[in-house]
Amino acid sequence: MNQFGKEFRLSIFGESHGTGVGISIDGVPAGLPLNEDDFKNDILRRKSGGKGTTPRIEGDEPRIMNGVYNGFTTGAPLMVYFDNTNTRSRDYAFVHDTPRPGHADFTAFKKYGGFEDYRGGGHFSGRLTLGIVAAGVVAKKMIGAVSVNAKILELGGSVELDKVLDAAIEKGDSIGGIIECTASNMPVGIGEPFFDSLEALIAHMVFSIPAVKGIEFGSGFAAAKMTGSQHNDNFIDVNGKTETNNAGGINGGISNGNDLILRVAVKPTSSIHVKQHTISLKEGVRKDLEVEGRHDTCIAVRFPVVLESAVAIVLADLMLQAQLIPRINSKGYIGK
Amino acid sequence: MNQFGKEFRLSIFGESHGTGVGISIDGVPAGLPLNEDDFKNDILRRKSGGKGTTPRIEGDEPRIMNGVYNGFTTGAPLMVYFDNTNTRSRDYAFVHDTPRPGHADFTAFKKYGGFEDYRGGGHFSGRLTLGIVAAGVVAKKMIGAVSVNAKILELGGSVELDKVLDAAIEKGDSIGGIIECTASNMPVGIGEPFFDSLEALIAHMVFSIPAVKGIEFGSGFAAAKMTGSQHNDNFIDVNGKTETNNAGGINGGISNGNDLILRVAVKPTSSIHVKQHTISLKEGVRKDLEVEGRHDTCIAVRFPVVLESAVAIVLADLMLQAQLIPRINSKGYIGK
Amino acid sequence: MNQFGKEFRLSIFGESHGTGVGISIDGVPAGLPLNEDDFKNDILRRKSGGKGTTPRIEGDEPRIMNGVYNGFTTGAPLMVYFDNTNTRSRDYAFVHDTPRPGHADFTAFKKYGGFEDYRGGGHFSGRLTLGIVAAGVVAKKMIGAVSVNAKILELGGSVELDKVLDAAIEKGDSIGGIIECTASNMPVGIGEPFFDSLEALIAHMVFSIPAVKGIEFGSGFAAAKMTGSQHNDNFIDVNGKTETNNAGGINGGISNGNDLILRVAVKPTSSIHVKQHTISLKEGVRKDLEVEGRHDTCIAVRFPVVLESAVAIVLADLMLQAQLIPRINSKGYIGK
Amino acid sequence: MNQFGKEFRLSIFGESHGTGVGISIDGVPAGLPLNEDDFKNDILRRKSGGKGTTPRIEGDEPRIMNGVYNGFTTGAPLMVYFDNTNTRSRDYAFVHDTPRPGHADFTAFKKYGGFEDYRGGGHFSGRLTLGIVAAGVVAKKMIGAVSVNAKILELGGSVELDKVLDAAIEKGDSIGGIIECTASNMPVGIGEPFFDSLEALIAHMVFSIPAVKGIEFGSGFAAAKMTGSQHNDNFIDVNGKTETNNAGGINGGISNGNDLILRVAVKPTSSIHVKQHTISLKEGVRKDLEVEGRHDTCIAVRFPVVLESAVAIVLADLMLQAQLIPRINSKGYIGK
Repeated sequence: MNQFGKEFRLSIFGESHGTGVGISIDGVPAGLPLNEDDFKNDILRRKSGGKGTTPRIEGDEPRIMNGVYNGFTTGAPLMVYFDNTNTRSRDYAFVHDTPRPGHADFTAFKKYGGFEDYRGGGHFSGRLTLGIVAAGVVAKKMIGAVSVNAKILELGGSVELDKVLDAAIEKGDSIGGIIECTASNMPVGIGEPFFDSLEALIAHMVFSIPAVKGIEFGSGFAAAKMTGSQHNDNFIDVNGKTETNNAGGINGGISNGNDLILRVAVKPTSSIHVKQHTISLKEGVRKDLEVEGRHDTCIAVRFPVVLESAVAIVLADLMLQAQLIPRINSKGYIGK
Repeated sequence: MNQFGKEFRLSIFGESHGTGVGISIDGVPAGLPLNEDDFKNDILRRKSGGKGTTPRIEGDEPRIMNGVYNGFTTGAPLMVYFDNTNTRSRDYAFVHDTPRPGHADFTAFKKYGGFEDYRGGGHFSGRLTLGIVAAGVVAKKMIGAVSVNAKILELGGSVELDKVLDAAIEKGDSIGGIIECTASNMPVGIGEPFFDSLEALIAHMVFSIPAVKGIEFGSGFAAAKMTGSQHNDNFIDVNGKTETNNAGGINGGISNGNDLILRVAVKPTSSIHVKQHTISLKEGVRKDLEVEGRHDTCIAVRFPVVLESAVAIVLADLMLQAQLIPRINSKGYIGK
Repeated sequence: MNQFGKEFRLSIFGESHGTGVGISIDGVPAGLPLNEDDFKNDILRRKSGGKGTTPRIEGDEPRIMNGVYNGFTTGAPLMVYFDNTNTRSRDYAFVHDTPRPGHADFTAFKKYGGFEDYRGGGHFSGRLTLGIVAAGVVAKKMIGAVSVNAKILELGGSVELDKVLDAAIEKGDSIGGIIECTASNMPVGIGEPFFDSLEALIAHMVFSIPAVKGIEFGSGFAAAKMTGSQHNDNFIDVNGKTETNNAGGINGGISNGNDLILRVAVKPTSSIHVKQHTISLKEGVRKDLEVEGRHDTCIAVRFPVVLESAVAIVLADLMLQAQLIPRINSKGYIGK
Repeated sequence: MNQFGKEFRLSIFGESHGTGVGISIDGVPAGLPLNEDDFKNDILRRKSGGKGTTPRIEGDEPRIMNGVYNGFTTGAPLMVYFDNTNTRSRDYAFVHDTPRPGHADFTAFKKYGGFEDYRGGGHFSGRLTLGIVAAGVVAKKMIGAVSVNAKILELGGSVELDKVLDAAIEKGDSIGGIIECTASNMPVGIGEPFFDSLEALIAHMVFSIPAVKGIEFGSGFAAAKMTGSQHNDNFIDVNGKTETNNAGGINGGISNGNDLILRVAVKPTSSIHVKQHTISLKEGVRKDLEVEGRHDTCIAVRFPVVLESAVAIVLADLMLQAQLIPRINSKGYIGK
């Protein structure tokens, strides 16, 4: 279902080419200062416009529809909506007969019987991540001193990021990348042994973001090649600080106070200008496909702020449960 | 919380050295033939005894306490319990002062204020996965023709599995591994775009299993190095079959009918006979630590059946939601 | 939290005097014909304007923001929003110091620390039931042949409804009432023994509607005075039809195919023109209070359609879970 | 589903004539002193043996299987199990063909296709309330100074309780009753406006108890006959204390600090020795039915402690969410 979280609970809605996209957020403490400007910075980081991103540039103006009064959250559900303003009307109906490789055209058609809004990916569009970023802004305020930062580690298998983007653009092809996210100033003790470990909840949220193919925490896949004596993180102080951080800040599903570290693999954008093969579902014959339209060469470029948001959302939820965030934001509270 | 699933819903309980471990499973269709023998095979696959596994060998006898009558599930909650029979009484209390690196000793102590049952890992013990395997047995029956199979791809970074185990045993050290799971005969259309994508739910469940450090679907982390024209899976028939399967059987969070493929990184067992460093939480001074007791050299060896179970559990839940599994098992039903 | 349901899942948001009120509905099958006109009739039944209702008359125009394409539901979350258009700006801040008896002023102030939007009841306003009615319209379509109808049994303890309304209006006082709801053409078998019995879920939903003080099913409170031989409903046919219907259509929490019958007690509107007593929270002295503003003399008058909606919502959710409503609406489907 | 609660979460399982009945309770704070003796008093209050109760007397010995170590809760799921010891083997299979009026025989047969364990009501048995009472014992410890007390108001429509019981026993008939529950020392601010109002959650839980036909809060159904000026509770101090308590301690779904008051209607036991009519589902002809076996004349007699438990469970859950109960029980904590 299109909901996530327990005490900090999201419901997402929207389509790429419909009225807009939005999110309702339940469980936000009362008294958090919040206005439209607070969203600007992170919305901008997600926005297209830079190298490797789609020429479709949306206004992305957040409208706080509910849950804020006199500049503060009220404790009632917060609803933020983003109108779609720059949609080009063209015919997407072809995706029903000739689904695009790598896209959700085929699966959505089967799941929803052809009733899905297929324009620009509809409800499957990366545009829905606007709602996640909006929730992330609120979550970051809630978690206060905990600092969540994501960055691109590599694009297309290379650290020469500019160069690989140029090459892909020239070919009309697309590339993926690896993004790393770190949360520092972490509290000890959030997450549950079964089944809501900190890794489990973050992975759940992160795999909700389109284009994610893998996630690893701390040493991650490299752990599979290590010995226990290499991998175990020796303690160096009574606060649980360790020499190494192969655990990625988590033991037994619970935060240990060291930095939370995770990496995510983002696949190359499915929309490319290179010729591909599909099949006509009606005729049963294979067809060539050249996808037109505006799209990102590398969605990974816009990914870091979405990943930060996903992580912050999980932390806000778990910190509420652990009673580390009060229900009413008071002056003494560390919220930004 | 110690619960997972929506229509097929698990509640897990138990400790390594207490009375036993168990699971209650809600949402099992009525009329599924089920008795204790049905659990034998998968329980045996999880069991220790082989090379690289702990010398603590438990009876692991499943007791169906509730939810079965006359050899069939009743539709009421199924409860399966495993008594602990082979626990050695020795003093684990040292973990409160000198937490073992790589274990949950420190985080559990902080989270539960020292009230946790710390004997043998307590509620964090890998022994809890008995409940997951039991639920997996039921799930496999429910999903019928869908076949879930996991295997070890490598241990300690090597495909010479016997050799690396011997080396680790000799050193008193431990090693990790990579496990791959495939589900074939998959239905099209299970999973949700937000936030309950097929990847999200599987990842959530899999990260509940102790020792998992990473998960990837289809091309996984390799996708980050590929171009879109390499990565996109071209369609070859009207059922959605594709030439390649970089998607791992999922597009837009929804199964596409191709094989579901995922790989999991398992870290080396934290318990080793090699000397490590910890810190006395009371005295604030670093101490050497040599962990005694019986433990696995390589937990990954026992992992495949647990992974299969985790995947089958998610599939059963989603297939119930998609109405692909009837609420009453009828004779015509494909369940095994 | 502001969410309800499992497979048919609501998230509500909104305030009486803010931008508007709305609801997002997840789990709606794809392919249900739906447009703004479909909401008209039930919205009109809830609307003020008749005798005993508030002179604040809102446009109550539903805007389908998401989840519908080309006149059919898409399977993605449906979001319906109602703008507030007829709000009078006057000072409600007095409720922070002198809370109105019978209202949520005091409890909201304590729970949200004074950050709540207190204008016109804010998030506690009966206006939020617009979202419930909107969800009810969709639910009624989903449950097809099951027919849900509610009617007023009595107002102010009398069946001379017109007369008691006149008397209350003249005194500036308010009255309550009893509403009965019947669902006929019920399927057998929906509801769960523990904890999601049909009564439990309906009661949960109904007590979410402001002003409800009690609910009873079938014989209800009268059952407490009956003997078993009077109360038990004797069977008369193999479909489970019974001579009497003291059970109200439910045995063991599960529908038995007879009419579902329930009654709800609605308290008199808290806003009255009669002088009352409150206390100044700052000064600690008792004060007289005369509430101005526009309000209903008898909220029960507008209640039947809200109650129908609440019942239909629960039935839709349980019928989805029982696989009695398909995930994709097909031509042969009985939906209206 | 057989689960209830959010932060204090129950999973119930069991059958009347199977191995036993039990409950797993997740979310119990660590450090609560708990042993089998703590359950004795409330278990005894629920127990049969007094006038009007069944001659089947069970040992009702609680076994704490998981979640307690060294006499304190560990923070891991608590599982309590009660073995069935006094079950008489007789043939219940007749209920499949000739369902007993007032029982769940017919609905269970239809819902579970005949696979249900029908012996003694199976999973629908009142015996399952043992688990609720066990959870109530834990909940009462958690809510500390909040005191929950239930009492019988009337049986069979009379306050001469002994007399009406004698009369019913003589006739082989059964009677119902009305039970009132009060919680005093209530915190202000628990409960949510939509959809988890305090009334909604309590009603949800209470309707899970077999035989409940109605529930009302404060003035309840009488409110429908009152005017607003009669019904509104005037404030008398700054803590929210009111002159009257028609609200039953709740405004806008949120506790107001006054006593929480609710009444529940319990129907007469369905099992009676008086001749009734049923229908043979196979033959389609009506048949006389005389139910043998041991049963209560008046289940309401055993009901007060079950109702207290249901209320305490909801309070514990909401107080955890409101951060009024700490996650680790400390010495200064008010828990009993």
